Amino acid sequence: MTENKLPYNLRFVVRDYECDLQSVVNNANYQHYLEHARHEFLISKGVSFAELHNAGIDLIVTKVEIEYKFPLRSRDEFIVTVDIQREGNVRLCFIQDIYRLPDLKLVAKAKVTGAATKKGRPVSPGNLVLRLGLES
Amino acid sequence: MTENKLPYNLRFVVRDYECDLQSVVNNANYQHYLEHARHEFLISKGVSFAELHNAGIDLIVTKVEIEYKFPLRSRDEFIVTVDIQREGNVRLCFIQDIYRLPDLKLVAKAKVTGAATKKGRPVSPGNLVLRLGLES
Amino acid sequence: MTENKLPYNLRFVVRDYECDLQSVVNNANYQHYLEHARHEFLISKGVSFAELHNAGIDLIVTKVEIEYKFPLRSRDEFIVTVDIQREGNVRLCFIQDIYRLPDLKLVAKAKVTGAATKKGRPVSPGNLVLRLGLES
Amino acid sequence: MTENKLPYNLRFVVRDYECDLQSVVNNANYQHYLEHARHEFLISKGVSFAELHNAGIDLIVTKVEIEYKFPLRSRDEFIVTVDIQREGNVRLCFIQDIYRLPDLKLVAKAKVTGAATKKGRPVSPGNLVLRLGLES
Repeated sequence: MTENKLPYNLRFVVRDYECDLQSVVNNANYQHYLEHARHEFLISKGVSFAELHNAGIDLIVTKVEIEYKFPLRSRDEFIVTVDIQREGNVRLCFIQDIYRLPDLKLVAKAKVTGAATKKGRPVSPGNLVLRLGLES
Repeated sequence: MTENKLPYNLRFVVRDYECDLQSVVNNANYQHYLEHARHEFLISKGVSFAELHNAGIDLIVTKVEIEYKFPLRSRDEFIVTVDIQREGNVRLCFIQDIYRLPDLKLVAKAKVTGAATKKGRPVSPGNLVLRLGLES
Repeated sequence: MTENKLPYNLRFVVRDYECDLQSVVNNANYQHYLEHARHEFLISKGVSFAELHNAGIDLIVTKVEIEYKFPLRSRDEFIVTVDIQREGNVRLCFIQDIYRLPDLKLVAKAKVTGAATKKGRPVSPGNLVLRLGLES
Repeated sequence: MTENKLPYNLRFVVRDYECDLQSVVNNANYQHYLEHARHEFLISKGVSFAELHNAGIDLIVTKVEIEYKFPLRSRDEFIVTVDIQREGNVRLCFIQDIYRLPDLKLVAKAKVTGAATKKGRPVSPGNLVLRLGLES
């Protein structure tokens, strides 16, 4: 895969404190990277995670699937991609990959399913879907 | 489900720093809980994650699937269960659930697939399988 | 120092994900331990950090001083102590030590200064001081 | 203070997972920011933290003092500065400030004292001192 064919993506560098005693990035930190890339993606579409929260709507993650292909190490640079699909009436599905730079080696593949909720109950992502350019 | 029918499990309490601005435990932290429970489980079976690492063998996670059912909040007490299955020749599969206490409300369901590696290559978990009481 | 002469203290075990590539607990995580012990101490005195926040009052940390004496490693057990002093009209000062178990080796010494704030401005800890058994 | 008079500095953006239930960056995460900026500073001087570790030398932090002046919130951009001084024969002292962007509002002031160690014992930072441009 070449970098100019990639979907939305965000660039990171591994910080030493993200590595654990196996000298690689701790598995849970990939979820942090994925989350930060999703939030920046949503903001690039005009959707603020924090503003939504203040308005009583939370975008919550209902399912995470991550395949770990190759570990990131201290100071590796990498990108996290974000693509989005609608799934049924209330779910949004984020397809996210992590590639090391500059060789674009595949580090991890993830599928993150989310839902919009109000007071803990699922609501139609309605307006969100329009902003994200998905068919309503 | 009643607590005395549960498989191996470890008790935790949510620490405030584990909660994010949605006032619930951040999704990535569930992976920390799951990891800590797996490591304690392995130690209870005589398998030390850190000692294995010093001997050149790393137990790595190749895939994580987590379904988030109900969020944990500040100071909630909960347990993380660990059950293990063999999958093919080189993979071990951990089935892990998280239940809030004292009502045993289901918080999350996870399946974590792991492999033993030496210098980055998969090796048969062999000896491990015996210690864990799985058929070889 | 013997354990039965210690002030309020909370017991922990190092979780592997808290260690970094130097194979010791990452420095920032000691601040997590200290925070969790302070919150549990406050709760033991009837002061809920999360409830205060919902009532518009935040206990904020204004200064942290930590001396690192000896590193904690994977699976070490340890205690974090909490003692409290009033400092002037608006500040509370937490004196906290970390000792490894079972030898009570000194791991870290900390002084954490805090203040009560409402809408970002310092307020007298008043009621808090009474609950914490400090002279008002 | 204007940005072009600042010492070495590194730019960051707050990631949502770094905020806690008070909706501000959790105190311990400032230590992460400070650490990452120090490591990048050292690398800019040709000193690799991870390579040193592999050569048996660890740069350890012996003391951290942080004054929290103003909290960072979701998506704030900020810089972390790094200045270094020698302290006696075996200690290095990092003077670090955090400023929010674009207004350069002071967020935190820190002094981090470190020492070079080999097998747990302090050694003269010798060669390091030269690379860092400090008088030996």
